[in-house]
Amino acid sequence: MTHRVTFMPHNREINVEDGASLIRAAMDAGVHINASCGGEGVCGKCRVIIESGEIGGGISEHLSSADREKGYRLACKATVHSDLVVRVPVESAIDASVLKSTYVPRRTARIHERNLDDLKEAGLFLPPVEKRYLELAQPDVQDHLPDVTRLVSHLKLHHNESRLTVNLPVIRKLPDVMRQNNFNVTVTLARPVMESGKTEIINVQAGDTTACNYAIAMDIGTTTIYGQLIDLATGAVLAESGEFNAQISYGEDVITRIMYAEKPGGLERLQEVVVGTMNTIIGKIIRRAKIDPENIAAITLAGNTTMTQLLLKVEPRYIRRSPYVPASSLYPPIRAVDIGLEFCDHVTALVYPAISSYVGGDIVAGVMGSGLYMESPLTLFMDIGTNAEIVIGNKDWMACAACSAGPAFEGGGIKFGMRAAKGAIEDFSLDPVTWEPMLMTIGNVRPKGICGSGLIIMTAIMFELGLINNLGKFNRDLDTRRIREDDGVWEYVLAWADETQIDRDIVLTEIDIENLIRAKGAIYSGCMTLLTEVGMTMQDIDRIILAGGFGSYVDLEKAITIGLLPEIDPERVIFIGNSSLMGAKMSSLTNRIRRDVVEVTRSITNFELSETASYMDNYIAALFLPHTDLNLFPKVGARLAARKKG
Amino acid sequence: MTHRVTFMPHNREINVEDGASLIRAAMDAGVHINASCGGEGVCGKCRVIIESGEIGGGISEHLSSADREKGYRLACKATVHSDLVVRVPVESAIDASVLKSTYVPRRTARIHERNLDDLKEAGLFLPPVEKRYLELAQPDVQDHLPDVTRLVSHLKLHHNESRLTVNLPVIRKLPDVMRQNNFNVTVTLARPVMESGKTEIINVQAGDTTACNYAIAMDIGTTTIYGQLIDLATGAVLAESGEFNAQISYGEDVITRIMYAEKPGGLERLQEVVVGTMNTIIGKIIRRAKIDPENIAAITLAGNTTMTQLLLKVEPRYIRRSPYVPASSLYPPIRAVDIGLEFCDHVTALVYPAISSYVGGDIVAGVMGSGLYMESPLTLFMDIGTNAEIVIGNKDWMACAACSAGPAFEGGGIKFGMRAAKGAIEDFSLDPVTWEPMLMTIGNVRPKGICGSGLIIMTAIMFELGLINNLGKFNRDLDTRRIREDDGVWEYVLAWADETQIDRDIVLTEIDIENLIRAKGAIYSGCMTLLTEVGMTMQDIDRIILAGGFGSYVDLEKAITIGLLPEIDPERVIFIGNSSLMGAKMSSLTNRIRRDVVEVTRSITNFELSETASYMDNYIAALFLPHTDLNLFPKVGARLAARKKG
Repeated sequence: MTHRVTFMPHNREINVEDGASLIRAAMDAGVHINASCGGEGVCGKCRVIIESGEIGGGISEHLSSADREKGYRLACKATVHSDLVVRVPVESAIDASVLKSTYVPRRTARIHERNLDDLKEAGLFLPPVEKRYLELAQPDVQDHLPDVTRLVSHLKLHHNESRLTVNLPVIRKLPDVMRQNNFNVTVTLARPVMESGKTEIINVQAGDTTACNYAIAMDIGTTTIYGQLIDLATGAVLAESGEFNAQISYGEDVITRIMYAEKPGGLERLQEVVVGTMNTIIGKIIRRAKIDPENIAAITLAGNTTMTQLLLKVEPRYIRRSPYVPASSLYPPIRAVDIGLEFCDHVTALVYPAISSYVGGDIVAGVMGSGLYMESPLTLFMDIGTNAEIVIGNKDWMACAACSAGPAFEGGGIKFGMRAAKGAIEDFSLDPVTWEPMLMTIGNVRPKGICGSGLIIMTAIMFELGLINNLGKFNRDLDTRRIREDDGVWEYVLAWADETQIDRDIVLTEIDIENLIRAKGAIYSGCMTLLTEVGMTMQDIDRIILAGGFGSYVDLEKAITIGLLPEIDPERVIFIGNSSLMGAKMSSLTNRIRRDVVEVTRSITNFELSETASYMDNYIAALFLPHTDLNLFPKVGARLAARKKG
Repeated sequence: MTHRVTFMPHNREINVEDGASLIRAAMDAGVHINASCGGEGVCGKCRVIIESGEIGGGISEHLSSADREKGYRLACKATVHSDLVVRVPVESAIDASVLKSTYVPRRTARIHERNLDDLKEAGLFLPPVEKRYLELAQPDVQDHLPDVTRLVSHLKLHHNESRLTVNLPVIRKLPDVMRQNNFNVTVTLARPVMESGKTEIINVQAGDTTACNYAIAMDIGTTTIYGQLIDLATGAVLAESGEFNAQISYGEDVITRIMYAEKPGGLERLQEVVVGTMNTIIGKIIRRAKIDPENIAAITLAGNTTMTQLLLKVEPRYIRRSPYVPASSLYPPIRAVDIGLEFCDHVTALVYPAISSYVGGDIVAGVMGSGLYMESPLTLFMDIGTNAEIVIGNKDWMACAACSAGPAFEGGGIKFGMRAAKGAIEDFSLDPVTWEPMLMTIGNVRPKGICGSGLIIMTAIMFELGLINNLGKFNRDLDTRRIREDDGVWEYVLAWADETQIDRDIVLTEIDIENLIRAKGAIYSGCMTLLTEVGMTMQDIDRIILAGGFGSYVDLEKAITIGLLPEIDPERVIFIGNSSLMGAKMSSLTNRIRRDVVEVTRSITNFELSETASYMDNYIAALFLPHTDLNLFPKVGARLAARKKG
């Protein structure tokens, strides 16, 4: 059930679910209500008058009984239970002028997932491992073919299979398994990458187990590892789970991990540790889905180049040394037990190939899993994190690059930066007259810090409203005690100490903004440089694919306002979530990807930005909000001009 | 230096090496001298008179000083040091009649080995593993190809290689190895079986190690395991060694081994034990040849079906149960370390395929290694042992069968039977008048028993001279105390207790002879049945190839006399020694065999004799000396007729 909430005097309406938070409804409607405590009800600022309709809660010691009788409530404590008319008190005529400002609703990227039905229709639902049920003739005195020969001949004769190989573990199982159920068996066939290759019989089971055939897809992230259990008969995800990569204890990022791996025994240790995390996830999803692990046939793995090499115990030291050479692009199929994964002997691990030291299998998985590599629209694929990877191209050609954005998007290098966790300021509004903020935190608790998406939103809003200029410097002339200088650094107070969880003023400093600008500048200039190298401009881009956790939270308009993303119709931006996991999953559903990825990996052009002359110029030009060249951001430019005029 | 020895009154001459034993010279010349102690000088019977020339030794307490003055010496204690005239005392005119008998010199099969030069000339010296030395371009800021890509591209560009795969252990080694010697490396390439297959890079080493490339060939016998270290650059055998298969403690033959393997943990135990023996041999030959084990690239293994399955830890229970089904014919290449062999990670184990439960990889190795499968002469290939395997055919077709000969040829089921070891009677002569024997033992020591080749010789001689009839029964009418009945069984005393090492009379019983006849009958009738099945007769056979240790000792004429071998010109019998080891070695020298063996294994027709109707008839007919149908042995028949007449 939804209710309509009308905010006055803005006369702005929004539909929300029954039980929704009133303050979040205001934020979503673009209605500013002063609020510093993230929605915990501590600051008492978010006073509104309920003119009609039913709310739950909203009462607080911050409201006198007189206030309450007048209909005042705290928006952060109120939940919506009917259509409402809510009046936001306006202190002055000047304040009221804000009402005229146009509101751009917050807009995250459209979620896009490749459709399994499309795959099936296109005849591409071809898992790399298949099962076949066989009723074999029983041997007798006239027919004493060896067991393997009996099996292979039957597959050739009755299933049109050819070029079959059988591995030793299957040969070991075969004699007993064949005789367990009157020579009725189910074989698991692992398909070759190329059609000219050989199909390997990797498992044999007594009776008919064709209904139970599973694969696991896994994303080996530097921070987090995710796994999915996939039903190869239907394509459905039966269970999924994520865990922090236990390697974190040995270093937060890939560089510190590589340094640890260079110590004696370090590589072995990191390998054990990541496999430990993977085994935890595998155990969980197997238990959740309540399947027999014997019916798992394959695991597909995607990770960045360093994660891949650490997992496979391949010396990563040359990744971090010029000229930044990875050990390999392609990896052969590996017996999962050989790298310590707790599976049955027959499980094959398929590893996504890397392109370069800093464009790894996770990105390739995104390119393959999103379908980018086989579609026509010219696409800008971005996986934004500490290291941002960019791919530009379509089915005809692709180019890629990686740039080091620094940790700003994950809260690193930001005075009160934090990961997107409970207490992180993730949404923000600013009163353009009083410069009072409206803060929303994850979990609606008193703020602890600022997460990456919050940082982008507040920077964009401050810039649009003129609280900071295009260099990210605060307007020192404004009449608000929230802008102040502390130890030579200018800052804006988001929340006062008594409104926070940390008993300190939470501020946004000019250094924080500078770090954000460097980060977005690195990424934007990376895109620009890549485009220039292939003789194109941002205008040529048909769509943007955002990947990675960051992409699901970022407000597209705000990201454009600060110049992180190029100016593009938000409809053309799609979000594919964990592209690495998705790519791993798609590989489990269609062997076509394994065939195509060899060619994609070979043909994609990798640019080392540090060795591309124009990169530094592009970077310098991008160290402005949104950019030195406002022609690249005409709509942002128009809004800025309108504001100045108004 | 050789000397001529002339035996009188036979007037028979023989050339022997300086220092040779005089009694062995007599035996080799076909001159009978009574002797029961195997040449140790105990019986004192082998008295001869040295008429001219110089001997060493020959003095004994068995000779009185008068005898010595007359020139009497003991032949077994005398060595030849100059040309000699030696008179063998003849006690009577009847005895002298023996001198007229024609002498057929002992004749073992001609040793045959396939010539490496022929292989080279035919362009077939193509080891399955090759080394290539590569001087790779070094990476720089303009060229940061992944290490594996750099390697593979170089091989494609400069060595015309294609369809390459690289395994994980090589990827792990590559980054450091490349940088140890300025990107100069040696790769080891494992060739595919089929030309359409992929070449695998299995090892990489710093610098140029192309001169050092080795393989091991190994025969996994039920009793003994032999290994050879082969230099793949030259084809030479650098070292070899043999050890008893330590599985012997768990059963003497394949059936008892299979029974042990069926106990809990039995298969695992037998696998460990055989690998232990193999590792001992591998360690020895590596130490003897003083090579770096890192340069060993492959091991080729051949063994019978049971030995192969035990080694690979593949359930053998169905081998000994009707309808006698082996697990597999072909086995894939296996990582040697995976089965417990103490090699570097990269070593591949190639296993000879089996044809059936009782015609195994050792026989296939013989067929491939001897060249039989690619040559025109119609060949009867026989590997004679407890289980005898027979192959008939040539390059156009082949048929095979196995028959259980029983252990007679290895001394089993023979009252005083023993393996061919020190003290075994291995040569025999019989005085046709006095029926006194002349015994030679291995090591010229007092006899302990009778080995297989000795058994054949004595049976053949006794039969030709009429001591036994064509049913193997002793002539009860002869005037010799050596033929006697003991506990209802007739026997011939070869050596009296005081002439032996065992203080018992060593005898040959009618039961022993019966067992030998059964054994030779099984083999001969196996050949007959196989020939009949393919519509041929013994006359069609162009040559016989004898394999196995037995083949090197057996006196061909004697084997024909008892009807073990068909009557054939001994020139047409060749002996190839340990055919299993030879086949394993040949596979290390030419990959052609690995390609061809797939087709050979598929096309060879296996007959189960127990299910072939004519086998029992043929067997019954063969339970005579030499055979019921003397037309099959015309020369033997003629000699018998001549003897009876004379």
